Amino acid sequence: MAGALSVSSQPTTRQLASTQSLFDTPEIQHDLSATNIQDACKEFPAILGPENVSTERADLVTHSGSDYQSYAWTEESAILSQVILYPETTEQVSELMKVCFQRRLPVTPYSGGTSIEGQYIPHLQGICIDFGRMNNIVELNKYDLDCVVQPGIGWMDLNEGLAAHGLFFPPDPGPGAMIGGMVGTGCSGTNAAAYGTMKDWVLSLTVVLADGTIIETRQRARKSSAGYDLTKTFIGSEGTLGLVTEATLKLAVKPPCEAVAVCTFPTLRDAASAVREVLSNGIQVAAVEILDEVQMKSINDSALTRLEWKEEPTLFFKFTGSDELIVQHLAKQVGSITKQNHGTAYIFASDETERNELWSARKNALWSMLAMRKSPTDKVWTTDGAVPLSRLPDIIEFAKDDIEKSGLLGSIVGHVGDGNFHTLLLFPEEKRHIAEEVVHRMVDKAIEMKGTATGEHGIGLEKRDYLEKELGKEAVDAMRSMKNAFDPLCILNCDKVIRMQVA
Amino acid sequence: MAGALSVSSQPTTRQLASTQSLFDTPEIQHDLSATNIQDACKEFPAILGPENVSTERADLVTHSGSDYQSYAWTEESAILSQVILYPETTEQVSELMKVCFQRRLPVTPYSGGTSIEGQYIPHLQGICIDFGRMNNIVELNKYDLDCVVQPGIGWMDLNEGLAAHGLFFPPDPGPGAMIGGMVGTGCSGTNAAAYGTMKDWVLSLTVVLADGTIIETRQRARKSSAGYDLTKTFIGSEGTLGLVTEATLKLAVKPPCEAVAVCTFPTLRDAASAVREVLSNGIQVAAVEILDEVQMKSINDSALTRLEWKEEPTLFFKFTGSDELIVQHLAKQVGSITKQNHGTAYIFASDETERNELWSARKNALWSMLAMRKSPTDKVWTTDGAVPLSRLPDIIEFAKDDIEKSGLLGSIVGHVGDGNFHTLLLFPEEKRHIAEEVVHRMVDKAIEMKGTATGEHGIGLEKRDYLEKELGKEAVDAMRSMKNAFDPLCILNCDKVIRMQVA
Repeated sequence: MAGALSVSSQPTTRQLASTQSLFDTPEIQHDLSATNIQDACKEFPAILGPENVSTERADLVTHSGSDYQSYAWTEESAILSQVILYPETTEQVSELMKVCFQRRLPVTPYSGGTSIEGQYIPHLQGICIDFGRMNNIVELNKYDLDCVVQPGIGWMDLNEGLAAHGLFFPPDPGPGAMIGGMVGTGCSGTNAAAYGTMKDWVLSLTVVLADGTIIETRQRARKSSAGYDLTKTFIGSEGTLGLVTEATLKLAVKPPCEAVAVCTFPTLRDAASAVREVLSNGIQVAAVEILDEVQMKSINDSALTRLEWKEEPTLFFKFTGSDELIVQHLAKQVGSITKQNHGTAYIFASDETERNELWSARKNALWSMLAMRKSPTDKVWTTDGAVPLSRLPDIIEFAKDDIEKSGLLGSIVGHVGDGNFHTLLLFPEEKRHIAEEVVHRMVDKAIEMKGTATGEHGIGLEKRDYLEKELGKEAVDAMRSMKNAFDPLCILNCDKVIRMQVA
Repeated sequence: MAGALSVSSQPTTRQLASTQSLFDTPEIQHDLSATNIQDACKEFPAILGPENVSTERADLVTHSGSDYQSYAWTEESAILSQVILYPETTEQVSELMKVCFQRRLPVTPYSGGTSIEGQYIPHLQGICIDFGRMNNIVELNKYDLDCVVQPGIGWMDLNEGLAAHGLFFPPDPGPGAMIGGMVGTGCSGTNAAAYGTMKDWVLSLTVVLADGTIIETRQRARKSSAGYDLTKTFIGSEGTLGLVTEATLKLAVKPPCEAVAVCTFPTLRDAASAVREVLSNGIQVAAVEILDEVQMKSINDSALTRLEWKEEPTLFFKFTGSDELIVQHLAKQVGSITKQNHGTAYIFASDETERNELWSARKNALWSMLAMRKSPTDKVWTTDGAVPLSRLPDIIEFAKDDIEKSGLLGSIVGHVGDGNFHTLLLFPEEKRHIAEEVVHRMVDKAIEMKGTATGEHGIGLEKRDYLEKELGKEAVDAMRSMKNAFDPLCILNCDKVIRMQVA
């Protein structure tokens, strides 16, 4: 309740109800006046040291968006924060939030800057808090299989540090993503099929709330039924409920053996049948990914991998186990199933170099599409959705057909094990509206199939209006009730995920 | 927002802060006047039909507690609800809640009645809603690996229905538990080591909020980053945030092959070292349980299993896989590790009858302690806690030592794979205070070890005061802020999990 008494205005009134509709939400009253910001900018250096406060235009611009956003961002048209703050401790973040709460300044959190649905766009201006200088592993508890980290550490750096201990952190989103943002987005990646998502790998969070209150959501036991699951409340809340300043992460033992297999199929349906048969036989695969023929062609055309690929729907399997015997056996079981489902080539590699080479095609999916750009102003729109498992071939066929009709170049990559798919659309800026329509129809279709507008990228600014379509007004009103409980002045990543003001 | 306008009183005022302390919480104003209850009892039959409303004393008593509660309950001293309601649809539950909200009547939800920390004790009286007549499988989506069920179905009944399809629902708490309560408690069981807890197996919930609003938390995609994770907000909230009227559950493919191995050790530390080595070698076990020598002795003494057991610390392993070769191989790997750690007997069974016989010792732990009661008024107190993995031998040794000093008979059973342990204390009613002190010291110690007051049984009425000790005042105040957002009149399982009035 830090700061509670120092806010001058009278208490808000609240309807006696379990949910809060947009139209009953009081008007947001941020104070972006020059005086207020100037005064705040006198307080910030005292908290952080002047070297951790920046108002340089270059800094403001790099924190305002990027080319990889679905959101239409350009350097010239960007909306900028007024100041970027680089805290180094939880206590500093708390002090900063007390200032922002008291001054009703909107705050945008920033870590890796790899989110793509507009999560860190400062569309209401104000203060940007960059967690890049909080990038340490605070504690490694090897025998508890956990570690404590700051939000500014990248998952790839973390895994480098863990490798010497035979451990790893499973969630594997895009390179560059940092723990803070990964918590915010509730991200996942190719490992989700076997290991689950970010929600399954965070034990506890230290969070600074809107008014500067610091909470710790759990201790370090791997399992707890003690009270509401605040940890999971913050995961996926995209910085709208609180700012993560420390995370206790569960770790997994790095499997002693690993192998990769790649198999092409005449049709998408054949590939999907193969996966269904693998799963229904209880065969444990560590990952299973699908790339469509357009994607395979772009990997060939971009020449980002050394191999020449068949331009057909292709499944990438990963197998892991405690020794070679198990991994080989799993791969053999899967090989025989793919064959029965018209799989036409089944390449297997357990040697590290070879298997990295095979997997590199999957890894380079986005980069190969970027390499296909004909002009520097061409864009690649990456977005995602997810559907119940059995509907994945339907949604992919729908999207492929629609992309073809649109005349754009677009590929599809799917996490087949959990019904999550990504579309990568290449378009010149003048055809943005066509890309928008394709994405819109695809998301609508996914929702119609009892799926979701986003499997792992989050809502941000871009997908807010799908939320009500997906979940109904009442569920969104319940979310708004939570938002209001934690952030009554609506200063934290305001108006993202859930609309807090009528558009 | 159903019912919002019909509540006569003026809007509450709310401090501008992110959290809510107990002392700032407005006094709870339930209306338990005879007139109010009589009038409500005229409305309920119109909603449910008179056959689904009961005020029979026998009914009130069975809904007021049980012998298996940690909570000190007796039939004579029980606090009773005024009426038991048996709804059959979500819409009925919504109508009932509108009545209770408008009349400020406290509501206690009830399903299997197997919770043990006082979760369904109607300590503030009022209305009990029993979900026992909502016990259907609504939908089975075999190829999506999910199903939709009502809250009154038991997990064992569900699994019987799923077996024919080669599927199962992994969370395995005590027999008799029903899905509604399992969601409430955020339970788990022996399968948690490999499959995770209830939080990992619920895709979506239909929830009736305090004011009667019906929300659906998600659609059916296996993965979603769309908005706040309301599903997980309700899991583990013990009926204090809303009433679950339907759940969409993830299902797992029943592993084609299964085996069980049992191994005894001269000391607890040896058993713990063996488990650590198994885990750190990346060997996938489906379950690993420990029973101490007291527990093994009570299994022998109670003669609940056909086998004669060594009365030593004993590990029970479960292995699963897609075929016999994998299961046998895993068991062999584990066998060689247990031997190196002074394991003195390693019995293995893959045949169904034999492996059920081995596993039955683990299953009968509680019943064997109950069988040891010398008088019908003797009690068995079952409680749990969890610590970081490496501290499990420390907390078990601490508890065993303490139990011995107390002079009570007490055994320990642990889910070694996730650091969760159970103590089962046998005591005559006049020694309750001694049992209470043992439990208190054990929970305190677990918290001191960075663990939790409960790994899978929940907080209920019994463990409320540990919550602040475990998480700090601020985190509990944040939970109270959520509680207040969803249930501003505090009618849902009021004053449980989190204190809402000064004791």
